[in-house]
Amino acid sequence: MSTGPSIEAIRAAAERIAPHIHRTPVLTCASLDEMAGAGLFFKCENLQKTGSFKIRGATNAVFSLGDAEAARGVVTHSSGNHAAALALAARRRGIAAWIVMPRNAPATKCRAVERYGGKITFCEPNLAARETAAREILERTGAVMIHPYDDDRIIAGQATAALELLEEVPELDFVLAPVSGGGLLSGTAIATKSLRPEARVIGCEPAGADDAFRSLAEGHIVPMPNPQTIADGLRASLAERTFAILRERVDAIHTVSEEEIVAAMRLVWERMKIIIEPSSAVAVAPATLRRLGAEGRPPRRVGIILSGGNVDLGSLPFAGPAGN
Amino acid sequence: MSTGPSIEAIRAAAERIAPHIHRTPVLTCASLDEMAGAGLFFKCENLQKTGSFKIRGATNAVFSLGDAEAARGVVTHSSGNHAAALALAARRRGIAAWIVMPRNAPATKCRAVERYGGKITFCEPNLAARETAAREILERTGAVMIHPYDDDRIIAGQATAALELLEEVPELDFVLAPVSGGGLLSGTAIATKSLRPEARVIGCEPAGADDAFRSLAEGHIVPMPNPQTIADGLRASLAERTFAILRERVDAIHTVSEEEIVAAMRLVWERMKIIIEPSSAVAVAPATLRRLGAEGRPPRRVGIILSGGNVDLGSLPFAGPAGN
Repeated sequence: MSTGPSIEAIRAAAERIAPHIHRTPVLTCASLDEMAGAGLFFKCENLQKTGSFKIRGATNAVFSLGDAEAARGVVTHSSGNHAAALALAARRRGIAAWIVMPRNAPATKCRAVERYGGKITFCEPNLAARETAAREILERTGAVMIHPYDDDRIIAGQATAALELLEEVPELDFVLAPVSGGGLLSGTAIATKSLRPEARVIGCEPAGADDAFRSLAEGHIVPMPNPQTIADGLRASLAERTFAILRERVDAIHTVSEEEIVAAMRLVWERMKIIIEPSSAVAVAPATLRRLGAEGRPPRRVGIILSGGNVDLGSLPFAGPAGN
Repeated sequence: MSTGPSIEAIRAAAERIAPHIHRTPVLTCASLDEMAGAGLFFKCENLQKTGSFKIRGATNAVFSLGDAEAARGVVTHSSGNHAAALALAARRRGIAAWIVMPRNAPATKCRAVERYGGKITFCEPNLAARETAAREILERTGAVMIHPYDDDRIIAGQATAALELLEEVPELDFVLAPVSGGGLLSGTAIATKSLRPEARVIGCEPAGADDAFRSLAEGHIVPMPNPQTIADGLRASLAERTFAILRERVDAIHTVSEEEIVAAMRLVWERMKIIIEPSSAVAVAPATLRRLGAEGRPPRRVGIILSGGNVDLGSLPFAGPAGN
């Protein structure tokens, strides 16, 4: 028996969240195809509401709750895209969202949560403080905890990005997605292996935060206490649930250097004119810079999930003359 | 009798260029709608091949040539997006493109022309030197001059962006487009007034390069010898042809400050996660910052042509904390 949500649960999630999210475009780029030696199909979750795929899982979780349960509100701890996504999903359902954020969370992320009506509780920037703060809110309010990835409803929601991609481009040979806690990659793997079993599913990870790579290589979860990467969305570690799904369904994890992340990010900005965050670039680098999928006649078809586009424009990793 | 290409010529252009261009998406953004007090529909020519709408007109012109004429190649003088567009259109037809560029043209623009196989001739950065260099090439090669905007085939091609926008969102109340030499705005006005006569067509222009505003106000072309604006795509002046079309079909010209251009550009980057160049932001500012179209029940529907996304990432006008 397989772990994680079924393809039926993923299809149900797609129907549940459709009124609340964008059906994001799948973009192509001739000059990147040429560089890659393959046909690249970019699923643009950077253009999604809240600027990342996270709204898919959050919306599915929030709208899966029974009315009485939902009325108590939801709570999570996150310094990133899940926080804003949960706040917006809760607002769409008309319920409260309490978000525990570390004191050093970027101001842009806090403003996004506030814009969507989330109630922020700040805490010290460590996991113990986050969990304590969240537990205190749970006890006080009776709200429902919505974990960013250790939750089948979240995974089913994140899977709908790959579902849409495969509906639009059925004959993919590869599907690439970044991996952090593993919610997106788990969902991507289940959807892909259900609809297109012959496609290889590749998780992409910064070399400086390669806990998924190590965990799959060693056969047990290897925690990553001090991840070092510009990809701020990819610093979480796998949960048992996502680890089990990845073991079953993912073909390989590719790790990329910080230089490759910035180079791939710049390529997409310059050639495709869309803003992706470093976490998304992690899944672009293997295809464009390393030509994964380049040996094939006809050219291989590579799907890439661009996970998000939330960056601080005031501090970008680009300097000097253009790269193209 | 109206000046400029007919709606039939525009439809023919759309059919002619369809195999060679992207049908760009029309994107929406809830938070910008809220700010604008209206429904905004962004036609994303920044995601077009070569990074701007210019490929539409260039492709229509190049593929309108007879075989014998085309075989002699094409020539233009441009330091901007038309240069790259003409080079790519010529390559698609398998003919030569000679591009006269000023010595001080941005390196990114030169590289784009080279990437598409254009043959660059550098000249001194003034109009007389450009025209002399182009004439010399014309005499030597017999190639066909393709002016960036003073040409009905170019105008018909540029008009196809508005045609597609109105096919997708028929009931627009306003259509906004930037104006420089007037090719895009002319085409936009002809397409809009043909398909949706009740929509108001608004040209948008930097206050520091407001020759279209002055020309329409005074009833004759007012040249702009020394335009001052960050919007490098909007420094050209109207031709008699485009001036006549704008007089007939455009409802108003709105001018915006340099601060508004940068603010609107940043808004689109941050909220929509797409890269637009300053020239495109000129058409965003009236809707988002000045709430053009805000008084209406139901909310007014505003179409905005995002003309291009070619910027140098090494020197961006953003600094300091995020704007959202």
